[in-house]
Amino acid sequence: MGDRGGAGGSRRRRTGSRPSSQGGGGPAEEEVRAVGPGGDAPAPPPAPAPDKDENRDSDVGSGPWDLSRCHRLQDSLFSSDSGFSNYRGILNWCVVMLILSNARLFLENLIKYGILVDPIQVVSLFLKDPYSWPALCLVIVANVFAVAAFQVEKRLAAGALTEQAGLLLHVVNLATILCFPAAVALLLESITPVGSVLALMVYTILFLKLVSYRDVNLWCRERRAKAKAKAKAASAGKKANGGAAQHTVSYPDNLTYRDLYYFLLAPTLCYELNFPRSPRIRKRFLLRRLLEMLFLTQLQVGLIQQWMVPTIQNSMKPFKDMDYSRIIERLLKLAVPNHLIWLIFFYWFFHSCMNAVAELMQFGDREFYRDWWNSESVTYFWQNWNIPVHKWCLRHFYKPMLRRGSSKWVASTGVFFASAFFHEYLVSIPLHMFRLWAFTGMMAQIPLAWIVSRFFQGNYGNAAVWLTLIIGQPVAVLMYVHDYYVLNYEAPVAGA
Amino acid sequence: MGDRGGAGGSRRRRTGSRPSSQGGGGPAEEEVRAVGPGGDAPAPPPAPAPDKDENRDSDVGSGPWDLSRCHRLQDSLFSSDSGFSNYRGILNWCVVMLILSNARLFLENLIKYGILVDPIQVVSLFLKDPYSWPALCLVIVANVFAVAAFQVEKRLAAGALTEQAGLLLHVVNLATILCFPAAVALLLESITPVGSVLALMVYTILFLKLVSYRDVNLWCRERRAKAKAKAKAASAGKKANGGAAQHTVSYPDNLTYRDLYYFLLAPTLCYELNFPRSPRIRKRFLLRRLLEMLFLTQLQVGLIQQWMVPTIQNSMKPFKDMDYSRIIERLLKLAVPNHLIWLIFFYWFFHSCMNAVAELMQFGDREFYRDWWNSESVTYFWQNWNIPVHKWCLRHFYKPMLRRGSSKWVASTGVFFASAFFHEYLVSIPLHMFRLWAFTGMMAQIPLAWIVSRFFQGNYGNAAVWLTLIIGQPVAVLMYVHDYYVLNYEAPVAGA
Repeated sequence: MGDRGGAGGSRRRRTGSRPSSQGGGGPAEEEVRAVGPGGDAPAPPPAPAPDKDENRDSDVGSGPWDLSRCHRLQDSLFSSDSGFSNYRGILNWCVVMLILSNARLFLENLIKYGILVDPIQVVSLFLKDPYSWPALCLVIVANVFAVAAFQVEKRLAAGALTEQAGLLLHVVNLATILCFPAAVALLLESITPVGSVLALMVYTILFLKLVSYRDVNLWCRERRAKAKAKAKAASAGKKANGGAAQHTVSYPDNLTYRDLYYFLLAPTLCYELNFPRSPRIRKRFLLRRLLEMLFLTQLQVGLIQQWMVPTIQNSMKPFKDMDYSRIIERLLKLAVPNHLIWLIFFYWFFHSCMNAVAELMQFGDREFYRDWWNSESVTYFWQNWNIPVHKWCLRHFYKPMLRRGSSKWVASTGVFFASAFFHEYLVSIPLHMFRLWAFTGMMAQIPLAWIVSRFFQGNYGNAAVWLTLIIGQPVAVLMYVHDYYVLNYEAPVAGA
Repeated sequence: MGDRGGAGGSRRRRTGSRPSSQGGGGPAEEEVRAVGPGGDAPAPPPAPAPDKDENRDSDVGSGPWDLSRCHRLQDSLFSSDSGFSNYRGILNWCVVMLILSNARLFLENLIKYGILVDPIQVVSLFLKDPYSWPALCLVIVANVFAVAAFQVEKRLAAGALTEQAGLLLHVVNLATILCFPAAVALLLESITPVGSVLALMVYTILFLKLVSYRDVNLWCRERRAKAKAKAKAASAGKKANGGAAQHTVSYPDNLTYRDLYYFLLAPTLCYELNFPRSPRIRKRFLLRRLLEMLFLTQLQVGLIQQWMVPTIQNSMKPFKDMDYSRIIERLLKLAVPNHLIWLIFFYWFFHSCMNAVAELMQFGDREFYRDWWNSESVTYFWQNWNIPVHKWCLRHFYKPMLRRGSSKWVASTGVFFASAFFHEYLVSIPLHMFRLWAFTGMMAQIPLAWIVSRFFQGNYGNAAVWLTLIIGQPVAVLMYVHDYYVLNYEAPVAGA
């Protein structure tokens, strides 16, 4: 029990302006205005008035016998009648509690496992044999496919190829882009799972970029044909590329290696003839992003080694025993570091890395993400967290489907289906394991989106999105890791 | 990687109004306005305009060849140049993370210890011998002191006692109120620590109330004397008790048993001749408060048995071994349940119990706490979390000291000192252990308040207050429990 607190009736409610700096003994400062010399009785005490503060002050300085107005008719703040709603401090409470709980987890982890961070070990994830760099070779070979697509476009522009032949060549090229690295990753012994994930990602990005490259060039040719047909009617009407620009490139002039490689390296998946460019490279901005990249990479590796790996290893036994309460406990334990690492990864990749690349290339459009953290529906989240992919899906998949007469529902299911395919592609092939967990996870977004939008609105919707993010990922991670362990470490022993 | 999300360029940024209820397949609903029949090209695309939303929509329906405006010059949201500051979703994130982490801790606890909640065991905390109820007897005896104070006041009002004799009798009475239960608690074998804490609390409250009773009656007599002296000048000038009231009681008429017991049972420590009264007993309000009392009591007992007791027991070993990193880990582990229980206790006592009592007694002033959760300084916290005690300290300790010429600093230090004394009184005597941890803890508030107000402002100050609350209490709890264990369970074995 007990409260005290040097008192002082006049306090600033809901404001934070403390006259704190005079030093002195903490509580005492408060009373400067409270019982000033001369016993300032503030106006005749009003009848139960609406202004709380004034009333509160009235018990302060009414002379030596402050009999009157020690109490007054009023509600408790938590009562709904009081109309009070300033719970600003609760956010700080949440932050303090989160930091403290995680500090404890961190300390517990250190006590239990000691320091597990080992930068050398990371190298072994990329390389089995230091003289063979299969993933890097794969990435270098990727240039061949880019050049192939370029040559096809060049010939199409010149009219040396028919549209059908061009389409066929593009399809063959694109199919090879997906199949070739998959075959290499599956057949080559010396490639590590991490190495092959990275190589497959590069190929996937290349695939998406070349689809966009082909589509945009096709649209340009179609427009050129149309413009020629209408050339008689109007002379130079239609604005070529958004109108206002001056140093713009128009269709066949864009087919240069310089333009192609600018697009391939730029942090976007959608090809455009005239990308917006930033005026100069801001050196301090670039330096900050590079330092962030460096530091956050270390942090991610450290957190994974120190926190995720032991937790995952500890969860293998409950999984084998099918001990459900322990599985859930492990899952929740894994959820925290997993989510934290994902958040760091998000910032690292979408803010630090992409901005650094964009700054270096003077690429103007820095919208790599929008405010997905405020998502109130699953749909909003998927539309806003990864803008390059979202833009690509919208431009080269969803809208073309609509134009071909698909219904919206079919088109968006198609997008989720394609995304599910690529998720599975990026996980199953490197792990040599076809379990469809990633595929299922992505496809489950459709009913999930429906459920969330149906039953949760506003902040509840937002909380539901966070919950699926925090819980959904570790479920998938545990599934794969469990199966991978069983396949690679358990099978030879027991075969269970 | 990977994003998809049925796309749809038109999205409601920062608003939460989803047209959710039509059913249909989640993402598809989004596109109703996006690519409507007729390819509605929304106005000629503006030059890099300030309005983001409009620009964003411009990539939606610009006919079959949407070559223009796929990218535009813009900053990432996290860049300070973007001016974006809507991180509303982060609060939801904090809440979800806190709930999940604690759900995990709860589950871990259940797996580790099973169900420890045992309502029967609670009874043993209050009673050693079911036929002897020493704490209850003590509480009943307390009436004697209340009646004694009343009789003294009665005689003082009638002029049958001089002021000096009255003061002496009051001092003796009040001193006995503090010493008698302390002596009983120390000497009586059959009283349990919990029982004696409760009895001592009742006596402490009685002590504070009777001090207030005596002071107010004294002020009334002084005013009456003054009024008589000035009676020649003005006839019936001074308003007796706040003026406006009609059915008010004035001085000697208030000295009735009915009035005394109303004050003793009312949820306030400050006596007043005419308490504000609520017009009627709201039955639904009362019922809600009573249900809260019942449920939260269960919850507190459950949390203590299931969560705090095992954590405290586990921390005994690190304490004995003086293993600092483990002590800190245990401390942080204890901090969470301790803080949670304290928060529940706060709501239970200051909102549910006090409001229930006030509603039953039609006591009008329900300000039992203010918005201490927004405290940006330690002083503000102490002034706002326990209003009955704060009011008492201000009225009967701090301001009288100022009137007698103490400086503000001395007066507020005095308040903290008195409070430290009562904290120690309520802990040391029941535990039969004089360690001064509680006393030190309270006195440490003075330098702490100075440090916080000096170095932390605004939200940082608020976070600092929360931190001291969350960490400070379990430190004191661990200190006492450790010493109690050593004294009662270790000593006979080893004597270490």
